[in-house]
This record gives sequence, C-alpha cells and structure tokens, in this order.
Amino acid sequence: MKKAKLALKTDSLSKTQIQIGNAVVGGTDLFIVGGPCSVESREQMEAVASRLVSAPVQALRGGVYKPRTSPYDFQGLGLEGLEILAAVRDRSGLPVITEVMAVSQIDEIASYADVLQVGSRNMQNFDLLKALGRVDKPILLKRGLAATLEEFVMAAEYILSHGNPNVMLCERGIRSFDTHTRNVLDLGAVVALKQITHLPILVDPSHAAGKRELVADLSRAAIAAGADGLLVECHPEPEQSVSDARQALSLDDMVALVDSIRPIATAINRSIPAGATSVPRLSFV
Amino acid sequence: MKKAKLALKTDSLSKTQIQIGNAVVGGTDLFIVGGPCSVESREQMEAVASRLVSAPVQALRGGVYKPRTSPYDFQGLGLEGLEILAAVRDRSGLPVITEVMAVSQIDEIASYADVLQVGSRNMQNFDLLKALGRVDKPILLKRGLAATLEEFVMAAEYILSHGNPNVMLCERGIRSFDTHTRNVLDLGAVVALKQITHLPILVDPSHAAGKRELVADLSRAAIAAGADGLLVECHPEPEQSVSDARQALSLDDMVALVDSIRPIATAINRSIPAGATSVPRLSFV
Amino acid sequence: MKKAKLALKTDSLSKTQIQIGNAVVGGTDLFIVGGPCSVESREQMEAVASRLVSAPVQALRGGVYKPRTSPYDFQGLGLEGLEILAAVRDRSGLPVITEVMAVSQIDEIASYADVLQVGSRNMQNFDLLKALGRVDKPILLKRGLAATLEEFVMAAEYILSHGNPNVMLCERGIRSFDTHTRNVLDLGAVVALKQITHLPILVDPSHAAGKRELVADLSRAAIAAGADGLLVECHPEPEQSVSDARQALSLDDMVALVDSIRPIATAINRSIPAGATSVPRLSFV
Amino acid sequence: MKKAKLALKTDSLSKTQIQIGNAVVGGTDLFIVGGPCSVESREQMEAVASRLVSAPVQALRGGVYKPRTSPYDFQGLGLEGLEILAAVRDRSGLPVITEVMAVSQIDEIASYADVLQVGSRNMQNFDLLKALGRVDKPILLKRGLAATLEEFVMAAEYILSHGNPNVMLCERGIRSFDTHTRNVLDLGAVVALKQITHLPILVDPSHAAGKRELVADLSRAAIAAGADGLLVECHPEPEQSVSDARQALSLDDMVALVDSIRPIATAINRSIPAGATSVPRLSFV
Repeated sequence: MKKAKLALKTDSLSKTQIQIGNAVVGGTDLFIVGGPCSVESREQMEAVASRLVSAPVQALRGGVYKPRTSPYDFQGLGLEGLEILAAVRDRSGLPVITEVMAVSQIDEIASYADVLQVGSRNMQNFDLLKALGRVDKPILLKRGLAATLEEFVMAAEYILSHGNPNVMLCERGIRSFDTHTRNVLDLGAVVALKQITHLPILVDPSHAAGKRELVADLSRAAIAAGADGLLVECHPEPEQSVSDARQALSLDDMVALVDSIRPIATAINRSIPAGATSVPRLSFV
Repeated sequence: MKKAKLALKTDSLSKTQIQIGNAVVGGTDLFIVGGPCSVESREQMEAVASRLVSAPVQALRGGVYKPRTSPYDFQGLGLEGLEILAAVRDRSGLPVITEVMAVSQIDEIASYADVLQVGSRNMQNFDLLKALGRVDKPILLKRGLAATLEEFVMAAEYILSHGNPNVMLCERGIRSFDTHTRNVLDLGAVVALKQITHLPILVDPSHAAGKRELVADLSRAAIAAGADGLLVECHPEPEQSVSDARQALSLDDMVALVDSIRPIATAINRSIPAGATSVPRLSFV
Repeated sequence: MKKAKLALKTDSLSKTQIQIGNAVVGGTDLFIVGGPCSVESREQMEAVASRLVSAPVQALRGGVYKPRTSPYDFQGLGLEGLEILAAVRDRSGLPVITEVMAVSQIDEIASYADVLQVGSRNMQNFDLLKALGRVDKPILLKRGLAATLEEFVMAAEYILSHGNPNVMLCERGIRSFDTHTRNVLDLGAVVALKQITHLPILVDPSHAAGKRELVADLSRAAIAAGADGLLVECHPEPEQSVSDARQALSLDDMVALVDSIRPIATAINRSIPAGATSVPRLSFV
Repeated sequence: MKKAKLALKTDSLSKTQIQIGNAVVGGTDLFIVGGPCSVESREQMEAVASRLVSAPVQALRGGVYKPRTSPYDFQGLGLEGLEILAAVRDRSGLPVITEVMAVSQIDEIASYADVLQVGSRNMQNFDLLKALGRVDKPILLKRGLAATLEEFVMAAEYILSHGNPNVMLCERGIRSFDTHTRNVLDLGAVVALKQITHLPILVDPSHAAGKRELVADLSRAAIAAGADGLLVECHPEPEQSVSDARQALSLDDMVALVDSIRPIATAINRSIPAGATSVPRLSFV
C-alpha cells in the first residue's frame, strides 16, 4: 500500500476527526448511527428519530436510492425520501446519512443529507468516488464484499485525492462460504485499518450478521476492537421492513443496544455523547 | 432466481445471438477477442490487429478508460484511445470492444466502439447498467469478483429490462484464498449459466489466471465447457505492457492459442470463423 | 514452494507414470474412474462394473468407509464393502479405488483395493499421510476444500518423503461464496499443478459441481485443461443413492460422458484406452 | 443442523461447564490460555509459566506434536515436550493444553496433558474425533479453515456422541481472499455458536490475525462478543520462536493484554479469576 499518499498514517498526521452535526467522528466519542434500511414514510422516520434521539444515537440513516440485486425490487422513495430525511433532521437535530448511487444524484442528495454513503457495490465505482472528492460533505465509504484492505484504502484515496478529506471507512462484512451469517464481519480489518490509516472507521454489524439476534454482541465486539462508531439497522416494526427485515432491530432493542455499549466504551476510555440535545428543535407529536 | 423475467431460459425463447461485425455471438461460431489490457498507441494497436486478423480473432479489445485500484496509476488514454480503436477497426475490419466506467462516457464510447464492456467492479453499478439498457450497442458484462450467479444474472436483467436485449456475460475469475493464480476461473458457473440463461457467455482466462503460462490451457477448457467465446489479453511486447503485463500473451502465442482451440471446437461441433476477411480494408503498412 | 524436494518438476525428472491394473496414469492415456459414492451392495457394484467395463472406464470407485459430516449418517459398509469391491474387481478386471480414513484401516484396505484415496477432509491428516508413505499401493490425494496449491503439493510431499512415489493429485472443487454449485472447480489449479509438479492430476467434477447436469461439461473442460483423468460419481439408480444422490450420473449418462470425452482427448493428442479387455474374467450374469 | 442431538441447546440443557485445574470454563469466569506455538525447551516453558501465573492466565498452551505444512519443518519435541509440559504444570499449578494429531498419540498425551487440542486441519479427522470421545480429558476443538458452523458443531457431535461431554469449541480464523491478515476472525460465528450450542467457546486471535500488533484489540473484541476465553500465543523471545514468530506476543505484552481485558470483562459481567493461586507449588528458580 505504499502508493497511498493521503489515507495512510504518517508521523506528522494526526487522526482525522470529522464534525457531523454536534458529533465529532474519530475522537474519543463514539458515533452511533441508527435507522431503517429504507426510508418508507414520514411517520416511520419520525418514530425512529423520536425514539433514538435520547438513546442517544448521534445520527440517523435511511436509504432513499436503494441498490437492489433485482431491478424489480423496491428502488427507494428518491426525492420524497430526501425530503422526509431533511424534515426529520430539522425536527430532531440528528444529522442524516443516505446512500448515493450515481454521480447524477450527488447535488440533490448533498443538498438534503449531512453525510453521503457509498455502498459496497460502488466501492470501486471510481467515477462516483472522484465526483465525491469534489463534494463539501463527509463521505461514508463501505467496504466492498470482496475488497482487500489495499483496495479499500485506495478507494478512499480516490476521494481524498480529488479534494474531499472527510472520509469515514465502514466495515460491513465480507463474502465467505458459510451461510449461517449473511457475511463475515472482519474485525481484524478494523484493527488493521486503524493502525495503517488516519481515517475514522465505523462498523455495520447489521449487514454483516444478517440476523438481528447477532447484532448486539457484534456491536459490542466492534467497539471493543476500536471502531469509532456503528451503523445499525432498526425499524419501528422490524418484520414490516420493506428491505432487510431479518436483520433490523426494534427501536427498543436499539435503545438497549446503546445502553449495553456504554460500559464497553468506558472500559476502553471512550464515551457515547448526548445525541442532539444542544440543538433547539420542535417536539415530536 | 425466479424473479428474472428476461434473462432466464424459457421454452419459447431461443438462445440469444448477437451480430458483432461479421461475427454472430451465441451460435455455432466461437467469438474470440484478443488485444491488450490498455490501448497505448496507434502503433501498438495496429501491430495487434494486423497480426490477429488472420489468426483469426473476431474482435479486438483494448481499454481506454481504465479502472485502477490506485488513483495514481495510469488511467487510460481516453478519447485519444477511442480514436485509435476506431482507426484500427476501420483498417482491419475487426470490431472493437472497450470498457465504459461512467454514464458520462457512454455516448462518446458508443460512437466509437462496437461493444461496450462493463468491468467486474461495476457489475452492480446499477446507474450504469440502466443507462446501458438504453444504448443501441451490445454490452459485455463481466462478473463481479464475488458475485453470485443470481447477482450476475440480475445485473444483466437491469440492462435487458431497460431496453437493450444484446448482453453477453463474461466469467473472469472469482476471488479466493489461494495466491498462486490471480483469481479462480469458475467454469462451473459458465456451464450453469448456459443452462439457466439464453445469453451468450464468454470467458476471460487472462484475468482469471493472472499468469500467461496458464492462459492457453484454461482457454481450451473454457471452450470445452461450452463458452461461446474468449477474451484474451495479448500485446506486441507483453513485458512492456503498461498494465497486467504478467498475464499478457505475445502475439505469436495468441495466434498459436487460436490454432490450438480449433480441434477442441471441432470436437464439440463448434467452429472458429474467419475474422474480418469479407470486409474490404486497407492493408497495414 | 521451494522446500518441496520430491513433488516438484526438475529438469532431470520425467512425469510420474503409475501403473494401475492395465492402465498407466500420467501418460498419453486418460484414466477415467466411475462408480458410486458409497458401495451399497454386491448387486449395485456389479451393475456398475458390467456397464462401465466397456464404456470403457479404467477403474471403479466406491466408498466403504465414509467421512460424513454427521455421526448419525451412514458410515459405510466397511469390511463387507471391501469384499464386494474385491469380488467385482476380480470379475471385471477393473482396479478399484476406495477411501482410507484412518491409519488403522490401511492394512485392511490395502489388501483389497488397488488405489487408496485420501479424502479432502484428511488432506492434512499428516499421521495418515506418513503412514501411506509406507504403503505399496498408489495413493489418490484429494485437495482440501480450502487448501492452497502449496499445501496440496506439500501434503503429497509427506507421502513421497515417507517412501511411496506413487501419488496422484485430485482437484475436486474448493469452497466459495456462491451456492449455485456445491464447490468451485479450480481448473486453473490443475493447469498450474501440471506445470509445477510431475505427479498425475485427476479431476472430480461430481463433488465440484454437486449437480449431475453440470458434470459432463466440466469433465470435458477438465480433460481439455490437461487433467490426466476423471473421477466421476455414477449409480445404477442415482436418485436412490444413499449419499450424494444429487450429483450422481446414471450409468447410461456415464457411458455417454466417456463417449463425449473421446473427441476432446483426440483434439489434445490423448486417448481413452480399453478398460479391462486384456484381463480374463468371468462374464457377468 | 437439526440432526445434532447432543451439541445443540435445548430448554432443559444448561450451558456446559468444564473444570480444568482450578478453572471452570463456560461460567462467569473467563479462561485465558497463553503460551508458545511450540514447546522448545524447559527454560522457555518455565519462563512463560513463571511470568503468566500471576498475569493471571488460567492455563498454558504449547505444541509438542506440530502439524506443519512441510514435512521438512520442525515437527515438535514429542515425548520430551510432554515431559516439559508436565513438569511446568506441576511447578506452576497451571493446567496444560497440547495438540493431539493422531489416535496413536492419545494415550501418551492424555497421561501428561490436562486438555487435548484438535487442530484445524483435523477438525474432520473423524477417526481421531471418535477416539477422543472415549478419552477422560476435556477436548479443545478448533474450527477448520473453511468449516461451516454446521460442520463445526457436527465435529463436536462426533466427540460427544462417542462418550466425552467435555468439548470446548475454538474459533481461530477462516480462510479468505485478503492477505493483510493471516485469516479472518469470525466473531459472528462465536456469537451464533453461543446461541445454538451449549458448549464453551474460546477464541484464538493469534492464528486469526497472524500479526502480533492485531492480537490485543481482537482479544478484547472476542471477549466483548461473548467468548468464554482466549488462546493466545506468546513467547519469552517472540522473534526467536521456531514457529509462528510473527504472531507471538512478548510475555510483557501478554500480561498487559490480560490487564486490558479486565475492564471489558467487567463491562459484560464476567471476570478473570486468579490463575493457580490455590495450588501449592515450588517457586521458580
């Protein structure tokens, strides 16, 4: 990985910290993101936000442009979803993260969302990466299903070298032979990436496990391994989720998860900050 | 794979055949494509074309927009490369295939090339796939490094369902644990895909093996397995190739490879047609 | 792989050829082995032998000690199965191959069978490999499900270095992420192994594919790739097979498979010899 | 996995707890095992024991019969190594764990060691598993490099169904495509196995990572995920280790690792018990 000039740690380079809403990612505080796989309705997202703001989580996630294996599956609410995300962000004070799948979507999404996510399938969509290098919003870059660490770091390098220094890496499980879990969460990669890069690293235990009963233990493991935060799928009615229902936590379980992470965070001298408490906002009805 | 409506075989649907130059892909004739990883110069491509036209190969390949792991590696000649490809096509009569990495490149590439290739990294770049569904040129869709057969077929379905029926699949090796070969050529996938879809299937033994000394045997195996053709990297001076030098054949070896495939083709009642003999063209200097 | 002293090709070392019954493995002739996953009865094995002797195949296979994932599954007929194998060998003239799972079984099996097979799960059972190095019968060593080529060659080296020079390698598919086929047949490994070792290499397309409809095409591909032979599962009543029923060919299909391989063999200057015709034997009833 | 009768959790079956020396594996206390890859000398093992007894670790590990990829690599001290292990156990009070590779070694090893380990390569050496089912010592069963969870549980079932109820599972990394770490530690498997079986589960971060700088973070992650203990390679002079030197911790780092696990253990209501304090023993010279 000798050719990565910007993503790798050097003696003179301190760890990258990225301000997102009230939160700072990559410092002592953890950055916990919760929300559904897909934005389905205003009611759904408000239920999520109102319950999670005091969990607390530090940001909300929700897909509005959905990369789906089949062209006949639900492709996301698009612009309507972005409007829902922005409205919920404004009421809750929680920054929102959503996936960008195409260069043509960047301007629109960047005008609504606080963080733009690049999904696993697009980790080496270099056209998209270069364009995101010219965007003034932090990027959450998910590892490809069969990406080596070198390829992952170099994908970040595409964004960094095109001008955007605010990249968060996200390990979300790699493809393997066993079918019991959906993918294999590679925490060794998280540990290694923390040692070789200066970028913050989040973990998505939901897509890794693919089964909600495995998410909490893997979340605690990820934090103990040194991850800077989590991206967890949860839903007001998990079984009714239009996508990835099998891995979504209930909101109660999501709150319990955050609680259960706190002592682990303390054990390694990290902390879970208040979510959006300093931001004035309307109360939820 | 029950949801794929257009890519899967049905009783009433015959095998898709695609006319490319003088060749028909997906019929009795094999479709053998040769050429360098990257278009480097006019001289290079003319050397390739003049030697391979009588091999014969049925088309030329050459990258002008290159997906590279590192942003600092050679990214291809771009428009200049397209002009070289078109010039060489016009002189040799051989159709040319090149990779498209971005929606913004489609119009330009489609105005020069005969077939647009989607690389492994973009197999699930759904934005690109949808746009290629609206193009009036055949598409060569390479399997992702960790794509299941369902995901591969569904990626083709994205193109088909957006209006372009001329899709060729290409197996090019999947990621595995062994480092002796670059990837693992999955001929079981080729056999299975021929049984479940009606689309032509090519094999790229060069990227699978990653070592030139393995290419010829794998090429013969691919044809014996039932592949409709091959995509083989070769170069006038393999060791000087700007990319993937380790896997490129010399032009002499490429000609010998075609010769060695002929008896295998005969053994399974297929044939290697003349390359571009019926097309009037200028002689090479 | 620099430490392998005996298995690797050298200038002074010619390709190993192993005499098994009338056949010579590793020369121009192919060595095609057919038979059921498990020896189930005398009638079953005689039906197999009488149909395949004229196919011709050059040897019969059948498991009598079966490595099964579950301790509650059928573990094989044991000694009774060996007696069946020997009786069928004596009547048909076809040598028989069966798996040895334990050092304690070696003497018994070696007194009945012509070739001792080491299964994938035992490829690095070094205790067994060392003991087989002291046996006066050829060994068929199957590649482990996740064995690198180095580990595979070194496993052969354990046998060779303990005194037995007659080792055949067998590629039988490696573990991967896709579930459409049971395993991924790695013909690139076959090509590479032929280049780096002097040992004969067989291919087992049945365990690789896991589905009978894929076996014939993969068999032809294996021969075209340069394999010295095949190990194919077939059964008088495939659907009734006590193990691996999904991948077993009918005897008719097995005969057709041998026929379909002949032109491929011819195309690469190899041949399928008569099976056991020069051996006097009783006719089957 | 419906056929596993003995290994799977049932309503009436409580979690298996195994007494080893003073420790109980599978209860609230963690079971941390340290020691070198190979037993090299009496001095080496006494240095390890005297430093780790107060760390504290609850047991020592050290290989005396070594499964090595090459037959020409160091194969272990054998009986001499067992005598060293027993002597060090007697002086330190720490139980000792060592690998058994063959049925013929069982009686000898069982007369010296407190726990018999089955290595990854032998996870489906069913002959060995059945024989260990008749042994009166706990078994530490390591997951194969490409073993599914079903195969892993079923391998334990072979031991259980042959009479030995005291089986500990050990996740030690699976084979994958990335070369940065030696293997991929699959903590999702640990979480899943805790939910579906009643057997204790240990984690070996050393073989998973293959690099010592990754071991501590992965150890903390493993405990946070719910593992019942750890198996960590350490050596008085890591760089001088005859095998696996790259992944061995120094003894100082091993002591620091135990210290760093304590707050994680506390966070999930588990604890690290004193090592061998209640056992009278001679002081080390």
